[in-house]
Amino acid sequence: MVRALVWNENVHEQENAVVRDIYPEGIHGCIARALSQHDDISVDTAVLQDPDHGLTQDRLDQTDVLVWWGHAAHGDVADEVCERVCDAVLGGMGIIFLHSSHFAKPFKRLMGTSCNLSWREAGEKERLWVTTPSHPIAANLPPHFELENEEMYGEPFGVPAPLETVFLSWFEGGEAFRSGLTYRRGAGNVFYFRPGHETYPTYHQPVIQQVLANAVRWAHNPAPRMTDVHDAPNVPIEDALEPLTQKGARLHKDGEDGFR
Amino acid sequence: MVRALVWNENVHEQENAVVRDIYPEGIHGCIARALSQHDDISVDTAVLQDPDHGLTQDRLDQTDVLVWWGHAAHGDVADEVCERVCDAVLGGMGIIFLHSSHFAKPFKRLMGTSCNLSWREAGEKERLWVTTPSHPIAANLPPHFELENEEMYGEPFGVPAPLETVFLSWFEGGEAFRSGLTYRRGAGNVFYFRPGHETYPTYHQPVIQQVLANAVRWAHNPAPRMTDVHDAPNVPIEDALEPLTQKGARLHKDGEDGFR
Amino acid sequence: MVRALVWNENVHEQENAVVRDIYPEGIHGCIARALSQHDDISVDTAVLQDPDHGLTQDRLDQTDVLVWWGHAAHGDVADEVCERVCDAVLGGMGIIFLHSSHFAKPFKRLMGTSCNLSWREAGEKERLWVTTPSHPIAANLPPHFELENEEMYGEPFGVPAPLETVFLSWFEGGEAFRSGLTYRRGAGNVFYFRPGHETYPTYHQPVIQQVLANAVRWAHNPAPRMTDVHDAPNVPIEDALEPLTQKGARLHKDGEDGFR
Amino acid sequence: MVRALVWNENVHEQENAVVRDIYPEGIHGCIARALSQHDDISVDTAVLQDPDHGLTQDRLDQTDVLVWWGHAAHGDVADEVCERVCDAVLGGMGIIFLHSSHFAKPFKRLMGTSCNLSWREAGEKERLWVTTPSHPIAANLPPHFELENEEMYGEPFGVPAPLETVFLSWFEGGEAFRSGLTYRRGAGNVFYFRPGHETYPTYHQPVIQQVLANAVRWAHNPAPRMTDVHDAPNVPIEDALEPLTQKGARLHKDGEDGFR
Repeated sequence: MVRALVWNENVHEQENAVVRDIYPEGIHGCIARALSQHDDISVDTAVLQDPDHGLTQDRLDQTDVLVWWGHAAHGDVADEVCERVCDAVLGGMGIIFLHSSHFAKPFKRLMGTSCNLSWREAGEKERLWVTTPSHPIAANLPPHFELENEEMYGEPFGVPAPLETVFLSWFEGGEAFRSGLTYRRGAGNVFYFRPGHETYPTYHQPVIQQVLANAVRWAHNPAPRMTDVHDAPNVPIEDALEPLTQKGARLHKDGEDGFR
Repeated sequence: MVRALVWNENVHEQENAVVRDIYPEGIHGCIARALSQHDDISVDTAVLQDPDHGLTQDRLDQTDVLVWWGHAAHGDVADEVCERVCDAVLGGMGIIFLHSSHFAKPFKRLMGTSCNLSWREAGEKERLWVTTPSHPIAANLPPHFELENEEMYGEPFGVPAPLETVFLSWFEGGEAFRSGLTYRRGAGNVFYFRPGHETYPTYHQPVIQQVLANAVRWAHNPAPRMTDVHDAPNVPIEDALEPLTQKGARLHKDGEDGFR
Repeated sequence: MVRALVWNENVHEQENAVVRDIYPEGIHGCIARALSQHDDISVDTAVLQDPDHGLTQDRLDQTDVLVWWGHAAHGDVADEVCERVCDAVLGGMGIIFLHSSHFAKPFKRLMGTSCNLSWREAGEKERLWVTTPSHPIAANLPPHFELENEEMYGEPFGVPAPLETVFLSWFEGGEAFRSGLTYRRGAGNVFYFRPGHETYPTYHQPVIQQVLANAVRWAHNPAPRMTDVHDAPNVPIEDALEPLTQKGARLHKDGEDGFR
Repeated sequence: MVRALVWNENVHEQENAVVRDIYPEGIHGCIARALSQHDDISVDTAVLQDPDHGLTQDRLDQTDVLVWWGHAAHGDVADEVCERVCDAVLGGMGIIFLHSSHFAKPFKRLMGTSCNLSWREAGEKERLWVTTPSHPIAANLPPHFELENEEMYGEPFGVPAPLETVFLSWFEGGEAFRSGLTYRRGAGNVFYFRPGHETYPTYHQPVIQQVLANAVRWAHNPAPRMTDVHDAPNVPIEDALEPLTQKGARLHKDGEDGFR
């Protein structure tokens, strides 16, 4: 059983009638409902407005894969929570960043780049092509699939070269985009998936829901969660695996913490 | 001509007699002197104690490749300067992180990971093996070379999978380590090079100086520096490359800034 | 249940008393016995001397992961069988190349490089370090482990940059080596694992057996096997997803095969 | 000065009036003329019909970067010449594969995969997007550029994950494609560039000629050509860098050649 936690900033659902009509349970509610159809995935949700944004250490410890949707309120995510989420990823929690979450604090933090792109909100047609059909994230997908209305994202996409590119998008207005990218950060699997503008019913599409379930399974790292992700242990000389005697000058005593 | 700027926190040279004796001009002075032997490299230096740490926007704009050495004072680097350096890298400035700079703020920022490792300060022998002899960073190097006294760094090294691994280290005490790693972040080339503990005369070694000169040349991106690394431009519908009409609901007006 | 097939050239076990004493059932027998201890892995074996080297199309179709050990008889593997194996990998069969199989025909074929290295047969100590402790291939392993007697392999190792480096080796004689490397070729997961010289009891070590079981699980791609790995289908103009009319001159008729 | 050699199978220029009209000097002639406009590039040409296909060892030794165009006659390239070319690449010769050369013998050999794709010859519009504007191959290019008539190539493209993706293509008929991919094989830089169907005047376009010149410069490895790309040297025990005595049984004598 993979324990997924769907996180949503949950802002436009409150403020915008169009979005509320499309996602009366919130984007998180829609995605959670879709994931819960799978017997091997258990789902919970959390939103920005919850205490600690619903992302306490205890909650993250109980989460195998975090699904993240944000757009209007990236800046309202507390830095402390962002650190906590990133540390959980380094320790082995999988994370899936959706659509406008390319500018989410933890995504920018884990990528180390600007994560910028060009965009157009025209409700145009998007067609996704599977470039790596054998990838677990492409399981049970057709070779290509369409979204009748989507926001356009255009290259250059300011991210590091990925481990693998799973999807490319073709847009009606003339752009192409790398829409599914995998990364590893520490023990954590990271997936970016492009579609999902809140004014269109993207997450109601069965094919998109299939991608999300695939990605949750792929991002799950069954290894025990690492909790010492920042440790830089000193190895005392007498514990060296080969015979060793101290030579030259030293700054540190045996077992001392290093500088940070 | 590649314009290199050698940056050093310059702390142990002031506080520790052993370090001062080895590097009377500071580590930055030693490295700068070595790089300046090459006709195609111009060199300047900057230290933590300079106003703005010597890393003003103007200075960075005039720098092709920044060489970074830090250890005891990572935390004293102003966040604002770290951001400025990282933005310069995304825009095309090359950067070389040396030894204990694995915990430097801009390195951790650009990697997105913990950058941790294990360590032992025993003055033991280190032997570096060139794994990619054709790489520009390995130009004019022997297949392997030794440092009689070095600090040990051990795996796991908490960094993302690199583009290429240029060096492996063998340590007298029994460890092995990935000692030369290349990355690209935005338009900037990034190289991490392991050797260089301040209590040993590592940067006086000709073979190490050769690596540094190679790395400076490799890290140089001759493309014009990008200054808009965080821009996420809206493409108005009427500017679409293919005929397009507005469909569905919108959050944004044409030409409006997106959310961050 | 992952269906593993352990393939061995099975030459030195027949010709060399030392090897026969260490591996009375053959290297394949030893590895198969170890893998069969795991409830989720079913195991079969095949050897060079079998008809078709035991690697008929039908056999490969029934194999999820092929484990390959060769050394003295790389040249005796029929080109046709090598092609068949590589095509199975492209279609989704996992493959694990052990030790001297760095020069096996299918490994060289899948890498596209020379796969060369330096070596020394001194029975020296090898210590493997886990560089990526969260990787499935490192499951249930200690941070490092030793083999009292092994052949040395030295860098440069003539392979493409891997997806990930899972192990580094430290050798008593002074070398370091990238000992566990992952690749993807088509739908097939590929793992190279260094240890296993036939004059030493390497595959009897529990820690090595753990690596092999981990690698078999990791290499298993549960997606349906692709059988059309070389197809390059023509898309007739009338089947284009967007309205399209023929423009300019043509070499081919609709639905025609392309050149090869 | 980078010494480029433009190789062309030169078949359709002989057999097809449309192609001959577009490329009266042959595709090789057109590309060579374009490259020769650059002071830092010297150019020569060779064709399939030359003795040894114009690719003798001596010719390859004098070549920094080989540009390869083939389509109808991949199978007519002698295996021996293919090996020679691939060995030159492993030794440091850069190579650029154009368009239908995705099925060229040396490309398939260096990739280790099927290199297949889908295609449509409709003379449709192709728009290329630069995904990595700071890459040397993108120097002096606009953010996107168009070819009014091109053959379509569609995903999945059966190649390994590249080091970097430099271009994406958008096709009028609805497909998207990874159109500029970089690899390293041994000491050789490899670039695949999609456009260039022989019934359209693609290589006459200045923007395409700019890409080719950029790619030639990028692919040039100034390191001395390696000639021992398949050597696997034995390191005699007495030459070990650390004190070592023979332990255990041996198959080989000191200095002996290994098995292949």
